[in-house]
Amino acid sequence: MKIAIDAMGGDYAPGDIVRGAVIGAREYHVGIILVGPGDRIQPELAKYDTSGLDIEIVHTDEYLVEGEQPAYALRTKRNASIALATRQVKEGKAQAVIGVGPTGGVVAAALTHLGTVEGISRPVVGGAFLGFAPKTIAMDLGGNVDCRPDQLLDFAVVGTVYARKMFDIANPSVALLNVGVEEGKGNEQAKAAYQLLKQSGLNFIGNIEGIDVPSGKANVIICDGFVGNVMAKFSEGLGRTICKWLEDQLKAKLPENEIKDMVNRLFMLTSPSDVSGGGPIFAVNGVVFKAHGRSRYPEVARTVGAAKWAVEADIVGALKAELARARGKLRVSNP
Amino acid sequence: MKIAIDAMGGDYAPGDIVRGAVIGAREYHVGIILVGPGDRIQPELAKYDTSGLDIEIVHTDEYLVEGEQPAYALRTKRNASIALATRQVKEGKAQAVIGVGPTGGVVAAALTHLGTVEGISRPVVGGAFLGFAPKTIAMDLGGNVDCRPDQLLDFAVVGTVYARKMFDIANPSVALLNVGVEEGKGNEQAKAAYQLLKQSGLNFIGNIEGIDVPSGKANVIICDGFVGNVMAKFSEGLGRTICKWLEDQLKAKLPENEIKDMVNRLFMLTSPSDVSGGGPIFAVNGVVFKAHGRSRYPEVARTVGAAKWAVEADIVGALKAELARARGKLRVSNP
Repeated sequence: MKIAIDAMGGDYAPGDIVRGAVIGAREYHVGIILVGPGDRIQPELAKYDTSGLDIEIVHTDEYLVEGEQPAYALRTKRNASIALATRQVKEGKAQAVIGVGPTGGVVAAALTHLGTVEGISRPVVGGAFLGFAPKTIAMDLGGNVDCRPDQLLDFAVVGTVYARKMFDIANPSVALLNVGVEEGKGNEQAKAAYQLLKQSGLNFIGNIEGIDVPSGKANVIICDGFVGNVMAKFSEGLGRTICKWLEDQLKAKLPENEIKDMVNRLFMLTSPSDVSGGGPIFAVNGVVFKAHGRSRYPEVARTVGAAKWAVEADIVGALKAELARARGKLRVSNP
Repeated sequence: MKIAIDAMGGDYAPGDIVRGAVIGAREYHVGIILVGPGDRIQPELAKYDTSGLDIEIVHTDEYLVEGEQPAYALRTKRNASIALATRQVKEGKAQAVIGVGPTGGVVAAALTHLGTVEGISRPVVGGAFLGFAPKTIAMDLGGNVDCRPDQLLDFAVVGTVYARKMFDIANPSVALLNVGVEEGKGNEQAKAAYQLLKQSGLNFIGNIEGIDVPSGKANVIICDGFVGNVMAKFSEGLGRTICKWLEDQLKAKLPENEIKDMVNRLFMLTSPSDVSGGGPIFAVNGVVFKAHGRSRYPEVARTVGAAKWAVEADIVGALKAELARARGKLRVSNP
């Protein structure tokens, strides 16, 4: 298996990307294609022992830079590193691609070069976002900020497949994030989505309120990308605020290293980007992973592992099968 | 000044409502009108020393019960306690009304009997919701789940007036809750609202992401009621989860009473309903306060104090003046 990585994405590129790739290659026994300027990648690669590893550089001088509008930039930079890395998957040279740059760039490259699976118009961004609820994923988390109700149904199908594979649960529970638990609650979008979910044949357990999100009641929480993004980032913000508060409260009451350890754990439990090494972009025709822009080499290495898992679990094939099944159900109940 | 209270609302009615009203009357030197069945209120009132207090009972046998759809129930129960309490304000017998029952009932009664201030179609629910950001209010928090962009502008005007009065800040900062900080980010609603806010003459500081909500960067955070409700309730849920986690972490490391104290403070700092005694329903033609359904007598008493403050601060008059001003600005810049 080969995994293509955009070596020029994120805050610590190319140094931490290359280092993470080397560690990932050794730890997970996969081949790596590093995409970017050879003259910048080669010196980084030379710092490490790569004997016995299958690491290749695919050269390009183009890459996305800070402040560019990614989708627009990709139209003029046809060989931008994220685009070229994504094309490695399209051309069968790699089985997965990892981007560390802006989500917009990773999504736009995936959309252009791989496309979405049949019947889903836009890639879906989601995953576990709260360490306190490790068997709960939420989607969308920001990829789709204006959603039709049927897109929320798509998220539910995508989430079910992912939760089933990831948590090894036969029939993951699906809940709709809403302002009240009763049927009929919510805005127009939620009310309509509720009806679609009810008929979907998925394990739909109804509405869930914000207060119950951390409880783990649902394996898959469905929301539009605007709500999901606000909630996931608020979790991160509140987590950091409480970490600072806790540090202050415990000062002089506990040994410094114990405080540090406790605060670090709380940080990890509330910070979406630190829960996992990186998350997949769902519903595209290929395995595409996005790592947080702040990722250092350990996160890059972990994302290599996550991408390998997704290829082996065939999340794309499983999604296509489930979509066909759920759509069939809906056609039957909505003749 | 007299404050009318629906004695039959909330989980602990009428006992805690009556007790809280007695304490509130004494502490804040206001008259109280308790509305509900006299035969249930009188025995509760008899438990306390009410000498020198101006407390009156207005009798009705009707009140909203658990599980009723409030707006619908109010159409058949014309003398439901919350409706009759609200009419005390309309008829000039009271200067404010407090409801402890479901928000839907308090809002529907306010809308029916007091109406909204000119130019705002729906009451607005909002206020401080996070103890970590005591000088930040968010609105809407659930009253309006389907919003047009111009309603978000209304929220900003309402919030500015309230923050100015409440925090004594001449020019409160206003931010739009969004998925990114740059102009042009967000869903269609947020993009359009951004443009209106930019031209409003308010102290609009741009977009704010979820991660920055607890920072206190903005005095007024604008969002639709769906997003606001999810965020405020998620704050409560995450806060409780961290409280439990913290208790567990500190066990055997600190004295039990110190742990209890720390956890209680964290609970208060993250639990929206405990930050204040209760919040106003904004943009109605009168001072209407809603206390949380779980309120015990101390919260009821505090809400009496908050309602008295709102009457004295003339929040309704101030809102009307500010609305006229903001609308004037918009008319000038949008000829």
